[in-house]
Formats: sequence, structure tokens, C-alpha cells
Amino acid sequence: MRDVAVIGVGMTKWGELWEKSLRSIFVETALLALEDAGVDRIDSMYVGSMSSGIFVGQEHIASLLADYLGQNPVPSARVETACASGGLALRLGFIEVASGMSDVVLVGGIEKMTDVNGFEATYALGTAADQEYEGYHGITFPGLYALIARAHMEKYGTTREQLALVAVKNHHNGSKNPLAQFPFEITVDAVLNSILVADPLRILDCSPITDGAAAVILCSAEKAREMNKPLIKITGSGHATDTIALASREDITWLEATYQAAKKAYAMADKKPEDIDLVEVHDCFTIAEICVTEALGMVEKGKGGKAVEEGITSLEGKIPVNTSGGLKSKGHPVGATGVAQAIEIVKQLRGEAGERQVKEAKVGMAQNMGGSGGSTVVHIFERD
Amino acid sequence: MRDVAVIGVGMTKWGELWEKSLRSIFVETALLALEDAGVDRIDSMYVGSMSSGIFVGQEHIASLLADYLGQNPVPSARVETACASGGLALRLGFIEVASGMSDVVLVGGIEKMTDVNGFEATYALGTAADQEYEGYHGITFPGLYALIARAHMEKYGTTREQLALVAVKNHHNGSKNPLAQFPFEITVDAVLNSILVADPLRILDCSPITDGAAAVILCSAEKAREMNKPLIKITGSGHATDTIALASREDITWLEATYQAAKKAYAMADKKPEDIDLVEVHDCFTIAEICVTEALGMVEKGKGGKAVEEGITSLEGKIPVNTSGGLKSKGHPVGATGVAQAIEIVKQLRGEAGERQVKEAKVGMAQNMGGSGGSTVVHIFERD
Repeated sequence: MRDVAVIGVGMTKWGELWEKSLRSIFVETALLALEDAGVDRIDSMYVGSMSSGIFVGQEHIASLLADYLGQNPVPSARVETACASGGLALRLGFIEVASGMSDVVLVGGIEKMTDVNGFEATYALGTAADQEYEGYHGITFPGLYALIARAHMEKYGTTREQLALVAVKNHHNGSKNPLAQFPFEITVDAVLNSILVADPLRILDCSPITDGAAAVILCSAEKAREMNKPLIKITGSGHATDTIALASREDITWLEATYQAAKKAYAMADKKPEDIDLVEVHDCFTIAEICVTEALGMVEKGKGGKAVEEGITSLEGKIPVNTSGGLKSKGHPVGATGVAQAIEIVKQLRGEAGERQVKEAKVGMAQNMGGSGGSTVVHIFERD
Repeated sequence: MRDVAVIGVGMTKWGELWEKSLRSIFVETALLALEDAGVDRIDSMYVGSMSSGIFVGQEHIASLLADYLGQNPVPSARVETACASGGLALRLGFIEVASGMSDVVLVGGIEKMTDVNGFEATYALGTAADQEYEGYHGITFPGLYALIARAHMEKYGTTREQLALVAVKNHHNGSKNPLAQFPFEITVDAVLNSILVADPLRILDCSPITDGAAAVILCSAEKAREMNKPLIKITGSGHATDTIALASREDITWLEATYQAAKKAYAMADKKPEDIDLVEVHDCFTIAEICVTEALGMVEKGKGGKAVEEGITSLEGKIPVNTSGGLKSKGHPVGATGVAQAIEIVKQLRGEAGERQVKEAKVGMAQNMGGSGGSTVVHIFERD
């Protein structure tokens, strides 16, 4: 397998983009990535999208987006594994370049979520859970993560305030990211007094509903060197699954798919948790970030909440988590999230992260999760 | 890139499977493929499904099906490009094994289409067209292919009877396939007197709505040799896109994505159309088979109708097309179709096709198409 580099990134402002359609959002973003990479042709493209069929009544977006990007007849594949669809697209693009099948691959992610009402959006997101054993009983995603949060509090003594501190930290980081949907600070009080969604989770524990896209250009490292591009390599890729339903797990506070995916990525990159300079994780809910940092081995099992309280995961901490603002502040157009995580890491490793730049960042990681942890994709990136 | 072989195939009876759920149909089929391959572990899996979100309210089926197949924590990816989702799954599984990333990969396809009513199914299938420029004007898939059929008749003199003969041939072949949804013969008169769906297409020109799954096991050819498996190699893989909307094409009778995908597959396998002993093509409508045989270079441009009339594409003809019964007789659970095409070719090359066996079959091809030709995946298989 060949070495693979990210040679271009593109992202536009996320939010409620009512004046734009799925195709226009994607094309705008993909063109930025192509411009950043300095290429005008690609061999192939991958698009992560969780549920364009339910959100905007459009499947077959692989063909649609290749067409509107002016890239026919290149191969174009849409891939899906719920909220980890973007990470999956990145992984399959990585494999295609590594295999030698293609030299230059565009990897995008997109979701247009605000063209439906809140009930429909909640239904669409719920299709990531086990519909027959979870959905039919009426539980929604905040409900599933609330169960995890409650179990974590009971088992490890994680506090309500520690959950709030995850949101506060991520909004602090996001306030330095002009592309974020909610680029402003919030306080612990604001979180604790926001409306209750599913006890103990409040609205400010939850990532928002967002329209947005993200795109990166992958290339063989050899070709990237010829092009004199700043060389950010993908050195590790791991993908794993767990039971889709929470009820089938031995311990709902433990994210086994994240642990397994990270294990593979660490092994491929020959890295340990302490070698990672910063990480973007899937904080769809505040409790998710806590559980993920534990499963990635960044903090001890059960100590995720304490780590946030102690500032270990803050921008200036030992292991900065979600410097982009995370899903919480940056927004969460589900299919795009995994690709946007990669963009944040690439920008940090290039030293282009502005006010939120992590000093001396050389190795970064992105963890993208589907459902209540039923699937996870992890990538490790390194500056050459 | 390494050589890749198909070492196991699995398929169950297709039809209106009201007593079975999406997960049970898939698991039954995947177990048959694993048994046929003689393996009990896989490194990874791919599942093609067009619209499980709309059909059964379940996205994230990659995780769900890995879970129910007892394969956690293996990576599992759902891929989609409308009715070519199965072919796409096969291609990505092929790339993963060829890259060296995995040795044994399960590739499945599934669609559970009969849990919704006819209106909903037509809506779901319509999401493969351009919703903003085709769907909103009220056209359905039979309508789009009816436009193609009318244009082909005008331009090349293709007759209504020639269209009917495609269905008659495929039902003849399907009558020898016990797994087909409609395993019986039909006559030209039956087609011509069946109800009109979209002039000139009648109900017996259209593939049916079907529940079903199909699965194959891919393996590096080297490992397959060690296992003493009958060696059917995938020697060519091509994937291409075209404009999603018919109105954007210069000539709607020509399937450019099929031409481009085939060109790549022929080049990779170092084969020409006349080297192919049999081919499974995407006859979602009778006119589609005619256009596809032309785009693949099996028959001259404009002569697809005449070729059927002259028996060139029949079981005993120069180039047997759709020996399995095709989508028309075998059924068309959209995400499963591309994988089932591969199964037919493998069975023929192994000499296990029973009454529909093509003599001396050594090289086979499968062509799987999405939408009204907006995407196409082509594979070439060879007996070692």
C-alpha cells in the first residue's frame, strides 16, 4: 500500500442554509478543496451522507454531485454509516489511493438537515438506532445518550457540571472558528439552565441540526511531493463496529467500536495515545466526548469528566480535544462531520488554525462515530 | 494491486418476503455465502442498499447487519449509488482486497421493498432521479425509460415487439432459475396486452418490486489458491457517472456511463467485447437491456433490438444476456441486484448453473446501473 496525503481542504460557513440547496452547498465546498489542492481533475470521488433520502428526498447523490461538480464520468460513491459517514468516506478514499487504483480522490461529506421540521429531523436521525428494538419504543438519540450519561454518573461519579464543561470548552474553541454555526462562548450556568431534553442532558449538551459540507483532496504522497504540497499524511486508519442497540452491550459507558478502531489506527501508524498532539472527537452530546476520550486511551477509564474539569482537554491542555469547536459549537451536518474533523487536523498540522492553533502540532487524530457508538472510524494524520 | 477471487456465493429465493425482516433476509443470505466459501471469519464487509431509510426507516444498516451476523467489531460499510449500489459494494470490496488492506471481505446487497405501499415504493425509487428537475415535475422511473424507448424507436426503428422479446427471453432464462421471483415463461402477446405503465412501456416491460439479498465472499487470489477453492477471479472493474437528469444528455438513447465503465473494465482485464462469453445486464426495463448491450459494445449502436430478435442474446446465442432471468424475471431488490449479477456469473464460470448453463463459459461480465444511467459499475470475471 502507498502513502497517502491530504493536499487540499474546503469548507464553507455552516448553519441554517435555507437559501442554498444540497447540490449548491456541496459544489461550493468541493471547489474550495480543489482550489486549495491546486488540481482541476480527480480520478474518483466519495461522498458521506447519512440520510439525504429522508432529509431532501434525494438518493443517488454520488451521481448528482459528480454531475454538478462537472466531473462526469469519474466514479463517484456515496457511503453511509450514520453520523460516521464522513469518516467512512475518508477511509474508503484513503484505501483507493493506497491501493494504487487512483492518484487523486475527492472526499466530501454533506447533510442538508433544515429543510424538514424538527419532528422529521428527529425521525431521520433516529434511523441510526435499531428501529425495531429502540425506535419502535419511542426512544430518540438524546434519550440513548442520556442513558449513557446517567450510567457514567452512577458508575464513575461524573458530575452534571463536568458534562456542562465539555460544552463550555467546545464553545470557547468554536468562538475562534469563523466557520462554526455557533461561534460564541457559553457558560456553565447557561448549560445548567437550558431546557431539559432527556434527563440529565439539556439542550446545550446536544449538538445542533445543521446544513453544511466539507471536502478534502487525497493524493499519493509521492505525487504530493512532486507537486510541492505541504505534506500531511494519513498514517493510520481504523474502522470498527459494535452492537447497534445499547441494550445488547455489557457496559453502556464503554465505546468498544471506538476502542477497536483506535487500536487499529494506532497500530497502523505505530503510535500510542501519548504521541497524539490533538484530537477531534465526536461530541454529538457532551457525554459522548467524555466516553470517547476514555476509549481512545487519552484519559483513564471513568476519568473523562475529571479530565475536562482539570483542563487536560482544553486548547492549552495536555491533549487538546475539539479545537474546531467540535460538533457542539461548529455544528453537525451529520455526513459532513467526519470530513470536517479531518480538515481541522490538517489545518492544525499545517499551522493554519489561527487563534486556535495548537503549538508544535505534528500528530493529530480524528474520531467519527455513528449511532450510539455502533460504528466508529478513526484516522491519524502526521506532518511529514 | 493483488489479484482478487470470489470464493463464496449466497442467495435465497427472492419475492414478496412479508414474513421476514431486512436483517433476517440478509443474515440468511450472508451465512450461505460464508458456508459456500468455507470461512467463518471476515476482515471487513460492504453492503449495497439504495434506500433502507425510506423503505424500512433504517439507516446505519452496515452496523446493524454486522451485529446480527455476529461479526462485531469488523468494519462494515453501506454504500449507495441507487440501483447500482450492489455493484458499487462489489467494486469497493474488490479495491480493499486488491490493496492488501484485507484478505477476506463479505460483499452483500439488500433491499426490503414490499413493506411500503406502491405509491411509497415509486417515491423511494424516484429519489434516484434528479428530484429538483425531474421528480418535482411528476415523472417516475418508468416515465424516464419510456422517453428513452420512444427515442430509440424513432432513431433506430426499434419495434414494440423487440422490446417485448427482451422480457420473453429473460423470463425463459428465469424459468430455469429456482431463486427467481417470477420463474416462468411469458409470451410476446402477454407483454403487448399487459397494462400500459408509460407509453410505450407496459407492466411486463418493467422489473418488479422485490425483497431480497445476495452475498459473495472475496479473497486474495493467493489465499484462495491455498484454500483450494475453485478460482473465479475479478479481472476488471470499471465505475463511471453520467448526468443524473436525462434532459442534460446529448443523446438519451446512449448510456455514456455504461460505455465509460465498460471501457475501464475491458482495459483492466485486457479484454474486448468479443472475448466475453456471457453478460448480466441491468434490464430494469426492456429498453435498458437494448441500450446496455449497445453501450457495452456487444452489438452495434442502434442494433440492440434487432439482436434480441435474431436470438444473438439468447441462452444459445453468440452472447447470452441475462441467463439468470435478469431483473425482469429474477426480481430487482435494488441494492442486491449488482451482487446477484456477480453470483450468476460465478455460478456459470464454475459450471454450476444447471439448466441455464452456458457451455465453455470462461469469461463473464456484470453491468449494474443506477437511475436512468447516471451511474454504472461493470465487472469482468474469469475462470483461472
